[in-house]
Amino acid sequence: MNRTYRLILDCPDQVGIVTRVAEMITRHGGWISEAAHHSDVESQRFFSRFEIQADSLSFGIETLREKFAPMIEEYQMNFNLIDSCQPKKVILMASKGSHCLSDLLDRWRSNDLDCEISCVISNHTDMQGLVEWYGIPYHHVVIDKDNKAPGFAQVEALVDEYQADCIVLARYMQILPQVLCEKYRHKVINIHHSFLPSFIGAKPYHQASRRGVKLIGATCHYVTEQLDEGPIIDQDVVRVTHSDKVEDLVRLGKDVEKTVLARGLRHHLEDRILVHGNKTVVFS
Amino acid sequence: MNRTYRLILDCPDQVGIVTRVAEMITRHGGWISEAAHHSDVESQRFFSRFEIQADSLSFGIETLREKFAPMIEEYQMNFNLIDSCQPKKVILMASKGSHCLSDLLDRWRSNDLDCEISCVISNHTDMQGLVEWYGIPYHHVVIDKDNKAPGFAQVEALVDEYQADCIVLARYMQILPQVLCEKYRHKVINIHHSFLPSFIGAKPYHQASRRGVKLIGATCHYVTEQLDEGPIIDQDVVRVTHSDKVEDLVRLGKDVEKTVLARGLRHHLEDRILVHGNKTVVFS
Amino acid sequence: MNRTYRLILDCPDQVGIVTRVAEMITRHGGWISEAAHHSDVESQRFFSRFEIQADSLSFGIETLREKFAPMIEEYQMNFNLIDSCQPKKVILMASKGSHCLSDLLDRWRSNDLDCEISCVISNHTDMQGLVEWYGIPYHHVVIDKDNKAPGFAQVEALVDEYQADCIVLARYMQILPQVLCEKYRHKVINIHHSFLPSFIGAKPYHQASRRGVKLIGATCHYVTEQLDEGPIIDQDVVRVTHSDKVEDLVRLGKDVEKTVLARGLRHHLEDRILVHGNKTVVFS
Amino acid sequence: MNRTYRLILDCPDQVGIVTRVAEMITRHGGWISEAAHHSDVESQRFFSRFEIQADSLSFGIETLREKFAPMIEEYQMNFNLIDSCQPKKVILMASKGSHCLSDLLDRWRSNDLDCEISCVISNHTDMQGLVEWYGIPYHHVVIDKDNKAPGFAQVEALVDEYQADCIVLARYMQILPQVLCEKYRHKVINIHHSFLPSFIGAKPYHQASRRGVKLIGATCHYVTEQLDEGPIIDQDVVRVTHSDKVEDLVRLGKDVEKTVLARGLRHHLEDRILVHGNKTVVFS
Repeated sequence: MNRTYRLILDCPDQVGIVTRVAEMITRHGGWISEAAHHSDVESQRFFSRFEIQADSLSFGIETLREKFAPMIEEYQMNFNLIDSCQPKKVILMASKGSHCLSDLLDRWRSNDLDCEISCVISNHTDMQGLVEWYGIPYHHVVIDKDNKAPGFAQVEALVDEYQADCIVLARYMQILPQVLCEKYRHKVINIHHSFLPSFIGAKPYHQASRRGVKLIGATCHYVTEQLDEGPIIDQDVVRVTHSDKVEDLVRLGKDVEKTVLARGLRHHLEDRILVHGNKTVVFS
Repeated sequence: MNRTYRLILDCPDQVGIVTRVAEMITRHGGWISEAAHHSDVESQRFFSRFEIQADSLSFGIETLREKFAPMIEEYQMNFNLIDSCQPKKVILMASKGSHCLSDLLDRWRSNDLDCEISCVISNHTDMQGLVEWYGIPYHHVVIDKDNKAPGFAQVEALVDEYQADCIVLARYMQILPQVLCEKYRHKVINIHHSFLPSFIGAKPYHQASRRGVKLIGATCHYVTEQLDEGPIIDQDVVRVTHSDKVEDLVRLGKDVEKTVLARGLRHHLEDRILVHGNKTVVFS
Repeated sequence: MNRTYRLILDCPDQVGIVTRVAEMITRHGGWISEAAHHSDVESQRFFSRFEIQADSLSFGIETLREKFAPMIEEYQMNFNLIDSCQPKKVILMASKGSHCLSDLLDRWRSNDLDCEISCVISNHTDMQGLVEWYGIPYHHVVIDKDNKAPGFAQVEALVDEYQADCIVLARYMQILPQVLCEKYRHKVINIHHSFLPSFIGAKPYHQASRRGVKLIGATCHYVTEQLDEGPIIDQDVVRVTHSDKVEDLVRLGKDVEKTVLARGLRHHLEDRILVHGNKTVVFS
Repeated sequence: MNRTYRLILDCPDQVGIVTRVAEMITRHGGWISEAAHHSDVESQRFFSRFEIQADSLSFGIETLREKFAPMIEEYQMNFNLIDSCQPKKVILMASKGSHCLSDLLDRWRSNDLDCEISCVISNHTDMQGLVEWYGIPYHHVVIDKDNKAPGFAQVEALVDEYQADCIVLARYMQILPQVLCEKYRHKVINIHHSFLPSFIGAKPYHQASRRGVKLIGATCHYVTEQLDEGPIIDQDVVRVTHSDKVEDLVRLGKDVEKTVLARGLRHHLEDRILVHGNKTVVFS
């Protein structure tokens, strides 16, 4: 694979940022193979992403980071420099519904998701054999509905043990405790089975059926303390008709859920998403 | 044009309804060129639509209606028999925004909407010349925001005078008084500029921008007393990104609004929509 | 599951067919839970599909078939009566690319595809373990590119042994010999990785990239002797841009391929597809 | 309106182009409000577009152009610098079908297309009154099918007289002579009523109906000497079924045609399209 360094930054907007950053890269022979920028007019904030060919530089990522240090301070940047050859460590969390999990595993095996899958955590054992066929550890962690703390403590221990960069709730069906939401801020990706902000909360397909909508959707978002209110990464919809019963909506919705989740995760793995407030900038 | 009789009915579900109806039509030589049925499991209600070639019958629509009278009573049917050669009389209501109005007028002139457009009613005069070029009467009816009753009385008088079968709120921007909603129940079609039930109420594109959604939509629905809560006829969406400002959402939304409104109206004109409760059956 | 009999027919169009068929069903107490009809004006042919609640009849499917015998002759019907509780036997054929295979297996396990999967046949062994985890026999049948006949003889033997009702080419990458296309007419479903009739033949994503199209697609169709020319069951597309290289098209295309193939197969399994000439009627 | 200078360039790819261009802009205080880049790996060509706030520079566009002169030569750039406050002069050409024409006129009047519409040229007079209501000159230029040269000479004279920057074939239904295609290279935008390269040539909806496709589309492209083979700007599709006759395809296709044409034209007017060979880079 082509090794690149991904430079992601945001800072208060002003003249000359792109030039200063680009000049710094080019001065050292760096080849910029991709670049995207966004100025948010309302917040007067600037967002940018550069992809630099690693082998065009005569030094490594640490040296590059040091060279940017003064600029980061001067412009008050949130600054991130990532080596594309260090795949992110991802933990998948799933329940009984297998469509998202199975879909992500096949994409990963087919090299369409550039990451390491550290393990799968589930409160059920149904998919253990399949996950292990992929060579991925499977942890059965029961969340007792009357006492959830021990289960989630185990989840937290696993996340920390694996030093996971990203947790994917692949139709996990459990609400993550607030403390974990905060601890893994902008690292937990959820797929919600409605076109948010429609049908927040439980049983969205039932709600959709009652309201008689003609399209149903799914929303991939970062998990925050506010349930179903986190920054939206991606969404999509599929057409339904009066003849589709709730179980048809559930089935049709699965296709949207797995596609949108995979797309959102891919953007995350490629460091294409910047969050500001409750919104995302996605440089796709 | 090919003349057909459209038979639309709904009633409590039971065995044999399709057969009884079809048998009645066929017994008199009627050629069924289209037929669609739907059983709503929850409400145990049956919905059906037949299209019959008019010239395959040896008698007219009135006689056909009489022949069905006993069956209507027996099955407790809501029953409607419509002559496709009697185009519906439609009143378009618009404000300053011209995209829906202009779109509907061109479709009508191109014979893609089978109706009579009785007149256009607007609280502005901007589009008067264009409407008149199409040979359609234009009524400028001011709705005084401090005293709306006289304006709406004038609207009501016009609707009654033209004996309109259908009123289209083509981005009319005014809330119809409750009394008119009730009087013209299931005859007033509105286009709401959001993917309902998301962003009910005012300035949906501003709401969408604040929430950071990745798709925006529009919803065509029958107007009821509950604002933006009426039975949904059709919906669609378009993709947006972080770089789209509110004014871009407004512009992109227009394409969805006009397409969805035209599609919904067309279904209405072809008697393809049956309403039950707050939902629609659309035999498209 | 709700047991139904599916009655599928086509015949020269004339007045009264729906009534005659419906009357026959109703006379014996049959409850029609779904019905759809289509008159093809050009060929003057009539197509129809009824779904009848099995337990509303006092006799079985064989007796029902007998009762229709005179009508079949009178109207010169192609007539099919299928018991929904006799799941079709499906053979999946795959190559190295796993996205369609893996997707179909998960749908099947999740009860979203109502069939038996008799076995998987592949010219590679990569997916053997996964297939067997699902409890499905795996046959590794090598197609020698210099002498294909023995391999395909083995395929034919397996199809016959399993008495398969349907063969799905889930990105099988081999052209079926003409004799098998004829033998299993309208039983072999292929997914072609282009929006047919664009980019017929080899390497459609390379062709698409060269032409600079802004959408790529996939086509699910019945296999006939004319490569990529069989009756189309379903199609869909996804948006691409100038920045998508061939390998991106391949990746983006996979999502469309697997969704369209699954949708097409589902229609086939539910007996919703009637073929006439090189076109399909899909009662969805 | 916010005045910007749009800088569009392409040249052989090498390290440092973005930096050099950005540095030149920033050195003079230029505020870059938008920037996009694309490296075509195959042709090793680099494409870029910058949008610069005009009032952030202390001098005008001519001076800016001069400052870039040495760089243009050094990098062998195709270079274009455009003032967003100089709206392009557009000529619309139409036939009897009014949907695209009427749609573009309404968009233009609603300020959703930033251009001057110099005139409408048509071989029919049907829409003259409507066009004139918009305050736009209408020229009725007959193309005699047995002697097309005089008509097209008149068209050419009008294009030259109005100094048009862009000609839009809004379902014009005539093939432009080769000499005009060459003279107005990359300035003539056509809407083709099929999803190219499917159904090249005449009566694409008839072809689509015969092939039994499940989606129909439209393609907006620059006109070249090779009919229907020019660089594609945008495409879209709409779903159809077996019950849609050719006239339904025509009607459904209109919605796609007008939307895709408007979108493509908008990209052109905003100088977002760069052509290389038979493909486009669209910085949307």
